[in-house]
Amino acid sequence: MKIYKKAILPKGFLASAMASGIKRPGKLDLALIYSSAPARAACVFTANKIKAAPILVNKEHLKKSKTFQAVIVNSANANCFTGSRGLKDARATAVSLAAYLGIKKESVLVNSTGIIARPLPLDKIKKAIPALIEQLSEQGMDKAKLAIMTTDTFAKEIGVKFNIGKEEVTVCGIAKGAGMIAPNMATMLAFIFTDADISQAALKKALGRAADSSFNCITVDGCMSTNDTVAVLANGLAKNSRITGGASFDLFVNALHLVCLELAKMVVRDAEGGTKFIRIEVKGASSVKDAKAAALSIANSNLVKTAIYGQNPNFGRIASAVGASGITVREEDLKIKVSPLEKKEVNIVVGAGKGKGSAVVYTSDLTPEYIKINAEYN
Amino acid sequence: MKIYKKAILPKGFLASAMASGIKRPGKLDLALIYSSAPARAACVFTANKIKAAPILVNKEHLKKSKTFQAVIVNSANANCFTGSRGLKDARATAVSLAAYLGIKKESVLVNSTGIIARPLPLDKIKKAIPALIEQLSEQGMDKAKLAIMTTDTFAKEIGVKFNIGKEEVTVCGIAKGAGMIAPNMATMLAFIFTDADISQAALKKALGRAADSSFNCITVDGCMSTNDTVAVLANGLAKNSRITGGASFDLFVNALHLVCLELAKMVVRDAEGGTKFIRIEVKGASSVKDAKAAALSIANSNLVKTAIYGQNPNFGRIASAVGASGITVREEDLKIKVSPLEKKEVNIVVGAGKGKGSAVVYTSDLTPEYIKINAEYN
Repeated sequence: MKIYKKAILPKGFLASAMASGIKRPGKLDLALIYSSAPARAACVFTANKIKAAPILVNKEHLKKSKTFQAVIVNSANANCFTGSRGLKDARATAVSLAAYLGIKKESVLVNSTGIIARPLPLDKIKKAIPALIEQLSEQGMDKAKLAIMTTDTFAKEIGVKFNIGKEEVTVCGIAKGAGMIAPNMATMLAFIFTDADISQAALKKALGRAADSSFNCITVDGCMSTNDTVAVLANGLAKNSRITGGASFDLFVNALHLVCLELAKMVVRDAEGGTKFIRIEVKGASSVKDAKAAALSIANSNLVKTAIYGQNPNFGRIASAVGASGITVREEDLKIKVSPLEKKEVNIVVGAGKGKGSAVVYTSDLTPEYIKINAEYN
Repeated sequence: MKIYKKAILPKGFLASAMASGIKRPGKLDLALIYSSAPARAACVFTANKIKAAPILVNKEHLKKSKTFQAVIVNSANANCFTGSRGLKDARATAVSLAAYLGIKKESVLVNSTGIIARPLPLDKIKKAIPALIEQLSEQGMDKAKLAIMTTDTFAKEIGVKFNIGKEEVTVCGIAKGAGMIAPNMATMLAFIFTDADISQAALKKALGRAADSSFNCITVDGCMSTNDTVAVLANGLAKNSRITGGASFDLFVNALHLVCLELAKMVVRDAEGGTKFIRIEVKGASSVKDAKAAALSIANSNLVKTAIYGQNPNFGRIASAVGASGITVREEDLKIKVSPLEKKEVNIVVGAGKGKGSAVVYTSDLTPEYIKINAEYN
């Protein structure tokens, strides 16, 4: 597998981006990724009971349609908590884009990220659509990755190439997200594109598996967003023999997992106000579920996060967070190791001394800058 | 019921405090409250799976003994995550105090709060015990309330007097706690004393009920401590006819609840770095459990807390926190009201539009000062 630090578009995909005026003038805020061939799609959405309008619309589309050709994303407005108007706006976005592209509206995935509870500026989006389509190109990801950003300080992208038989398959992805990041998931959008030929069932299974040990293992502030989406589109143009299971499925899952994990880690590295990238491994728990619960409890502890910010190795706070997770653990069995805190990358390893369950979670520290960003946002 | 802003000791109770040298020289760090008559006791402890040594010892004592006469508390060291030595130290504290007082060691409740994972300076405590006993007095609470403080910026105390029949009953309490405050509970110690005559079963029931809607309804940072304890001692010297149920039980629960709630609110008012006192009421939920879950989800959301710090009325973050709690709720039914954020007291009322469940939770905002305190502590 070859890994690229760029989201190299797979065969048949084109992208573009525009400054439509949702952000301040001249700032890219609208992205389109288009597949010339109908693609299968799988999505994972936020577990928040309040879901943004575009998620509700995408869920409808995923039920109704078997193929997808367009992903449109606006930043600076989440179109969430916007009631029936929000739903109408999300649907109108899909209808308008589909009409210009000459595809069914159900073949469009609509996505929004940004401030909650403000009406979507639909006119600006509709007005930008013709030029957005006009500008579609193989280099379009260079702009699209920027247009989906909100408080992100850098664009998040990755690409991998690998062979299935003699055919070269590409998987690439872009993501945004810097705060409101919690497992299951975050104000995090990730869009993954591949030219692999893969059955619908296999694609869904592959995404579930890849997301579970990547996007669902990161947390910045424990706040679960209303808009989180990971979407993957597979258009089959690599012409590999169709993946349904077996070795080719494993190869694909490996590639997809790598793309998901790298994007997820980039989101943590860009955590609002974060100065540390923290890897937390819990091993020796009674089960994987327990290990993950303990790792997340540590990762979401404001006291652990501030201690790491202060370069203050406070083992007691880590132990306390493990205990607070409610997993079966005895004080005398706990083993805690923390790498030197002066470095930007911090590694916490906790041995629970109970069984064979292990899990890794990624997070950032909690800093005055996080508070500044989130007190002043809006 | 008469309410006093002071912890007026009920009949038969005496208190004292010392600077034993656990804190820097001259700072009060050791408190003793003593009842001349054997008292019944009830306690609520942290739900954290990692429990500090004194909690384990107190649990033993509560099993073995029916009466209690002494509560000893040291600050600046939590005696937690200290292994078998910690247990030995907590037991030795009880043994030493009991010997000087001429009571059984099982009649002592030992309590520690402060830094985790450091050995308890037992010698200092033992050395201070004779003078601590020597100085017991009816005015001793004035010092005892200070000696239990760690990062607290003010002492927390309250007293109430009410009649059961012709007899006047007093309930008073002191508490400490400012960070690591979460429901079920916090690095929070509260000690309540009453001269009421009440049966063991009724006392236990009364404390459970009072704590549930007070100490278990406050959260500062969602971090559950290893040392949390609420203890109540009732020595019966008010000579009221013994409370076992009925109207006198209700009177007692009301008084105890008031003491618990006022102490709990003081803890939130003293939240580390907090600039706001936030009351969150969720009503119209399917159940009380749902209402409390939603209220706590709002209260523990770093994004809500930073928005309030920034005086930024972000309804979307509140809605998102309700959704993240997993309770049954529809966006269109949600009604959110937030009082003006310029004031120190903020009131958030959320209507879930589902049923009759309601709950109130208290919290503070999240500020750069919280991070400063917790990054530098230790």
